[in-house]
Amino acid sequence: MINVLFSGTSERWPDYAPHLRAAFEAEGLDVDLREKFPPEEVDYLIVSPNGPIQDFSAFTRARAVMNLWAGVEEIVDNETLTQPLVRMVEDGLTRGMVEWVTGQVLRHHLDMDRDICRSEAKWDYHVPPLARERKVSILGLGALGRACGETLAALEFDVAGWSRTPKDIPGLHCLSGDTGMEEALRRAEILVLLLPETPQTRHVLNVLTLDLLPRGAVVINPGRGPLIDDDAMLNALDAAQVGHATLDVFVEEPLPEDHPYWSHPRVTVTPHVASATRPGTSAQAIAANIRRNEAGEPMEGLVDRKRGY
Amino acid sequence: MINVLFSGTSERWPDYAPHLRAAFEAEGLDVDLREKFPPEEVDYLIVSPNGPIQDFSAFTRARAVMNLWAGVEEIVDNETLTQPLVRMVEDGLTRGMVEWVTGQVLRHHLDMDRDICRSEAKWDYHVPPLARERKVSILGLGALGRACGETLAALEFDVAGWSRTPKDIPGLHCLSGDTGMEEALRRAEILVLLLPETPQTRHVLNVLTLDLLPRGAVVINPGRGPLIDDDAMLNALDAAQVGHATLDVFVEEPLPEDHPYWSHPRVTVTPHVASATRPGTSAQAIAANIRRNEAGEPMEGLVDRKRGY
Repeated sequence: MINVLFSGTSERWPDYAPHLRAAFEAEGLDVDLREKFPPEEVDYLIVSPNGPIQDFSAFTRARAVMNLWAGVEEIVDNETLTQPLVRMVEDGLTRGMVEWVTGQVLRHHLDMDRDICRSEAKWDYHVPPLARERKVSILGLGALGRACGETLAALEFDVAGWSRTPKDIPGLHCLSGDTGMEEALRRAEILVLLLPETPQTRHVLNVLTLDLLPRGAVVINPGRGPLIDDDAMLNALDAAQVGHATLDVFVEEPLPEDHPYWSHPRVTVTPHVASATRPGTSAQAIAANIRRNEAGEPMEGLVDRKRGY
Repeated sequence: MINVLFSGTSERWPDYAPHLRAAFEAEGLDVDLREKFPPEEVDYLIVSPNGPIQDFSAFTRARAVMNLWAGVEEIVDNETLTQPLVRMVEDGLTRGMVEWVTGQVLRHHLDMDRDICRSEAKWDYHVPPLARERKVSILGLGALGRACGETLAALEFDVAGWSRTPKDIPGLHCLSGDTGMEEALRRAEILVLLLPETPQTRHVLNVLTLDLLPRGAVVINPGRGPLIDDDAMLNALDAAQVGHATLDVFVEEPLPEDHPYWSHPRVTVTPHVASATRPGTSAQAIAANIRRNEAGEPMEGLVDRKRGY
């Protein structure tokens, strides 16, 4: 019997419990899944970063902590967490992100807002260029960035991807390092942020880097709020240096009611939905990782504490 | 020397002439391209359906009439036109359509308008289903319908395609005939119209067929205006039987200023841009067809007069 503690936010328990039970059974695991356990009896923890557990030291026999989200920045520096930490790597999360990013890139590529928001009876003929003539840059080539880049390249967009260390992905113009970053920014008619949140990526878009973008560039951020220096972004939007920003993530969420992003005419706010953890597919990912770990196989999404993701 | 008459609308001549001359040269053709010729000296005509030539009988030695558009319904029944008629089949037109249709399907799938048009500071959390859980039906599996279906299927949408005669396309649930049409409509959360305009397809969406759609279905029409019975559509929109209609083509274009589509809250009007003929790629397609015909090879897009397309 494997004891699994679910410690996501409690309102998600009814969504997750049946999916998790079905997934454990499908993997052939004999699991006791509960919302409460004496800490010393827990074999695996399923947690969300905004959940109740902040001190992991009492979970003395826990073999892993499974994060419900792809992002681990709120938990990775917790010094009481000495157990292996696994972030969510699941197909549904990747697919959701690919759909959201592809949709938003096409929206801006086709200038859809012009038709969606038109208030007068005006035959306003405007033919967009073809995707092959549209330069998109993606910062971050992890599982999500890579999947988005490959999908956009399949649609014939002219896609460059930047990563910290050099990568080679068919169909993408792969860039890395400081000079690669400058090239990625200078060419970006549409810029997509899919970097993890680390001390190095904080404010990757700032006064200097926003100025490298072609005038009127579109910024799409489904990554992490702190990737953007919000004051610098607001100035760039006011000056039309950034033509539009579609932002899904923010330093403070929900975005405060008085934040200037809400009313800025060049900003679209979406409520952190680009890639939602979905109970069905994420339960399968967690169950598969527990089965792997019990069989002595490596888990998918095991966090490297030094890198921070 | 091959004499080619350009008889599109005259304002397009400056756009097309340099692309056509370059394309003829690239195909190794010795062409005299002009806007005016004595009719009996013309070898090939390049026409747009809304252009000046309505009587083709004087073009006694013309070896083909090349239509600048994919749609030929305004010209195919012209009894003076006895020369082979070729419709535009070119990569740019197909890619433009794929981009527009994919973008509009993703827009409705993700319910983007909710965020784009939000006027208040409201964190309105809404997670869409994954594409694999979204049923899209495409009516028409010609070059455009097929390309759109394949792209949407690659994005994991659950895609059915309907054609008059049975087809078999990997990744698509292919339907045909009357019972196939009923199935295509009954399952369509998002319906895309890409049928040619013929007497048989006129008003394919009417009082009866609109009623077969699931309540709240989205209709996307980048095909032809007369595919829809507009009165029936307006009633279905008023009753929320159709949740939204994104319409790119209309019986009368530009759509008259007093047409109720302009102000209907469930309608997005786009100004016939889903698939614009682009001078560069269409010039290449025309030149390649003339080269083929001169070499005794079949031309791409040769119209079957009996079918009407």
